[in-house]
Amino acid sequence: MKSSNMFYLIYTLSLLLGLLCIIFVTVWSKCYRGGFAWDGTGMMFNWHPVCMVTGLVLYGNAILVYRLPFTWSSSKLILKLVHATLNLGVLSLAVIGLQAAFGFHNNMHIPNLYSLHSWVGFAAVIFFSLQWLLGFLAFLLPCTPLWLRTAYKDVHFFFGLCILAMTVAASLSGINEKLIFVLNAPNSTAPYKKLPPEAYLANILGVLLLCFSLTIAWMILKREWQRPNPHASALSDATEPLLTENQ
Amino acid sequence: MKSSNMFYLIYTLSLLLGLLCIIFVTVWSKCYRGGFAWDGTGMMFNWHPVCMVTGLVLYGNAILVYRLPFTWSSSKLILKLVHATLNLGVLSLAVIGLQAAFGFHNNMHIPNLYSLHSWVGFAAVIFFSLQWLLGFLAFLLPCTPLWLRTAYKDVHFFFGLCILAMTVAASLSGINEKLIFVLNAPNSTAPYKKLPPEAYLANILGVLLLCFSLTIAWMILKREWQRPNPHASALSDATEPLLTENQ
Repeated sequence: MKSSNMFYLIYTLSLLLGLLCIIFVTVWSKCYRGGFAWDGTGMMFNWHPVCMVTGLVLYGNAILVYRLPFTWSSSKLILKLVHATLNLGVLSLAVIGLQAAFGFHNNMHIPNLYSLHSWVGFAAVIFFSLQWLLGFLAFLLPCTPLWLRTAYKDVHFFFGLCILAMTVAASLSGINEKLIFVLNAPNSTAPYKKLPPEAYLANILGVLLLCFSLTIAWMILKREWQRPNPHASALSDATEPLLTENQ
Repeated sequence: MKSSNMFYLIYTLSLLLGLLCIIFVTVWSKCYRGGFAWDGTGMMFNWHPVCMVTGLVLYGNAILVYRLPFTWSSSKLILKLVHATLNLGVLSLAVIGLQAAFGFHNNMHIPNLYSLHSWVGFAAVIFFSLQWLLGFLAFLLPCTPLWLRTAYKDVHFFFGLCILAMTVAASLSGINEKLIFVLNAPNSTAPYKKLPPEAYLANILGVLLLCFSLTIAWMILKREWQRPNPHASALSDATEPLLTENQ
């Protein structure tokens, strides 16, 4: 199979998996957890998984912007602005998702940030915010020295993948934690270990998130699918002062 | 700082983090969870986290074999045999770790493989076994066609990283799950949300595992730290019939 056809096959698969993730988390929250509100109850908490999963799917698509062949005719600056804007959307979703969890905890007198899930998830949001800020300073400010831009590019790429892995770990531990809390509660009709339909649905959501992230990582890491840059020097991608380029 | 010095700095850090992970999981199981036995009780289960965490640390070191500059004077075949042997050790630890969990579950009449943690962890072990088998067939059997060896190399590398990410996700969700089960049990003196010393210890274990894996991923992905192969053709690493090479 031609390499570009293989790319589009995996890209289509990633879009489908991402869509399924959003559908599964919404159905879980809406049909099994009582739907949505912003009132400090469990319905407020339900925004947390929906925002975080949607944020993860959007993040996967944001880091993929430079790999899409139909974007290669666009200016690099436009691609960088799209990348930064999509990631700002991810950050907004993460902040709303955190507010939903904290609001629910505060209202129910549950401490915040005690579980390993919350530690890893919160660290992922902090890392993501720093990554966005440093990416903006390094690649979108024309006054940033070229040597710094070059030096930072590999770090930005690597931490982008690390944040993806951290969000997957946080999501899977969060789904697992939520299922234990709600299905093993005294008023539950079927415990987690009996695998009721809700447990199947949410477990499959976790598997879908993992598969989605693997397709994204594969497309990002495969060297031959990187954006070609025939007009520039070897150092171009890292060293162009992006806000002043006129491609 | 010189690039090789930076490598050894991160390598030393990874060794230290790996050692700390093994110490932390052993202290957790020994001092907080009652120690070790092979009798179907919680003491049998305690082998599960110890084997899995030790396996993860050994796996990180196994995939790093080709990156260590002091191994570069060795024959490629010897490196491959070391890589395969270390990974066989990882597989043994994973199998013992699974037996410990299944033996405990069966004795306590708890179903196996119902939680998302167990789905992801079990899938990681299955993937790891397939990866080992396919790696052996592709890179250690001299009769494997060169085109197949070349085609499979990227896939082997990518799935090696995926398995690392999956084991981290499984470990973090497993630590989180175990802490909820034991600290929120009716006979517990301090629930998880009060962050008793055991919760701190195990949460920090999760953070250490994450940091360890990030150092390994950084060393693996950084292109300039790959093993040089000046004597061979461009395709050498992928196409040498390894059991017949005489480097």
